[in-house]
Amino acid sequence: MNQKKLFEQIKKKRSFLCVGLDVDLKKIPSHLLSEPDPIFSFCKEIIDSTNKYAIAYKPNIAFFESNGLNGWKSLEKVSDYLSSQYPSIFSIADAKRGDIGNTATQYAKAFFENLSFDSITVNPYMGQDSVEPFLNFNNKHTILLTLTSNHGSDDFQFFGLPNKPLFEKVIEVSKSWNNSDRLMYVVGANQIDYLKKIRSLLPDSFFLIPGVGAQGGDLTKVVLNGINDKCGLIINSSRQIIYASSGLEFQKFAEEEARKIQRLMEKELLIRGII
Amino acid sequence: MNQKKLFEQIKKKRSFLCVGLDVDLKKIPSHLLSEPDPIFSFCKEIIDSTNKYAIAYKPNIAFFESNGLNGWKSLEKVSDYLSSQYPSIFSIADAKRGDIGNTATQYAKAFFENLSFDSITVNPYMGQDSVEPFLNFNNKHTILLTLTSNHGSDDFQFFGLPNKPLFEKVIEVSKSWNNSDRLMYVVGANQIDYLKKIRSLLPDSFFLIPGVGAQGGDLTKVVLNGINDKCGLIINSSRQIIYASSGLEFQKFAEEEARKIQRLMEKELLIRGII
Repeated sequence: MNQKKLFEQIKKKRSFLCVGLDVDLKKIPSHLLSEPDPIFSFCKEIIDSTNKYAIAYKPNIAFFESNGLNGWKSLEKVSDYLSSQYPSIFSIADAKRGDIGNTATQYAKAFFENLSFDSITVNPYMGQDSVEPFLNFNNKHTILLTLTSNHGSDDFQFFGLPNKPLFEKVIEVSKSWNNSDRLMYVVGANQIDYLKKIRSLLPDSFFLIPGVGAQGGDLTKVVLNGINDKCGLIINSSRQIIYASSGLEFQKFAEEEARKIQRLMEKELLIRGII
Repeated sequence: MNQKKLFEQIKKKRSFLCVGLDVDLKKIPSHLLSEPDPIFSFCKEIIDSTNKYAIAYKPNIAFFESNGLNGWKSLEKVSDYLSSQYPSIFSIADAKRGDIGNTATQYAKAFFENLSFDSITVNPYMGQDSVEPFLNFNNKHTILLTLTSNHGSDDFQFFGLPNKPLFEKVIEVSKSWNNSDRLMYVVGANQIDYLKKIRSLLPDSFFLIPGVGAQGGDLTKVVLNGINDKCGLIINSSRQIIYASSGLEFQKFAEEEARKIQRLMEKELLIRGII
């Protein structure tokens, strides 16, 4: 998957919605718990019911790992299902990995080769030799944590103010890395004050934006400050969609929530002449 | 496992050696490849042959994950083997995780409950609410990336100089977090110029020090600048020990390398009156 194809999906579906698969066994519809693999069954139903409106899916790896071997089995099935049934959809392993050299290569192999994700979220703290091993993979993307939506983002990501804050330094330095055209960036939906600045520093990059919906971010403001002429935004919504209902017909409610967000996105794309 | 028991192990074994289990199928003795689970067999042999001299083991999670489901199975077996056969040895999941709130809790459950590690390495970039969920677990430890040994550490960890660098800010802020007494810190063995300063900022904390041996760090210099009256050091060696030989009797060579390092450590502990 390359960024040109991702943009084609965006235009075709008139959407830049990513559905986050944060699958908590305590929150999924209880009737699924008797299935042989409740996590996979839930993901499959969510994917099948929302893919008309979504251009990306983002399994949150922690929720799989916390179920041990069974969780890893479910993750393999979800990854296989996405790549075989919906190959034009952009898949994101929300793994937030970060380690050096050969270890980073092992993580890249885990998610790009053993599993078949198109992209992975990566932490920049350890610098160049912790990120470039991921960037070596052709047609794969590395989504760098930049300015996140959680309150702890205040602790270090703004370090350096009133001069240049750390998150700007991360952007600046990352542009010099090999294959930096394969980078995307995580920017929290609630970081509206800084989104315009980040877009000016990265006019052509895709941003993965979590935090719209349940976490309080405002779609219109994000678009106003972050969109570019190739959209450049992948906006994630998790709980609002996947836990819209815990009843027998949860898929319908998830589909309806995804559709609602897609309608808003379509409007934004139309206003700006992108579609 | 608590830090008191860890110090007891250090005194008993007259060692503060951690053996890193970076198990690369391309590097392990070829005769193991016909075993049903070569990764576990290799780890088991290394643990059995070196545990007289080691107070900790540190599986590098990437090397397991890159083997998919089989790798995760091997990791479970290594974790079970350590906790059942060697419960007084400190086990470290070198996972370098970092995510927020409920997601961090899922990672903590994965490594502290589903697997039974005593500790995990965690990345500080996302701040307080990405680390405190790990610190909630009693008798478990969170080892925070602080100043790493790779060349990419220059990119961001020194950001802020000539005033306070980021790694010092990480230390300062981390001390205010809930259950911060469960924190340990990763400091690269080659960061000798800063180790003394870091020890002055954290007089009582344990440091996990990678980079001695194959990565070029000098044991004596590390001890001189980093030791405290309860040792406070866990020095990791991986390749020098585990790949000492790829022959049929690789265990003996691994044991001999571990013993050599232990002898050096014993001398340092004796000189300083810690044992």
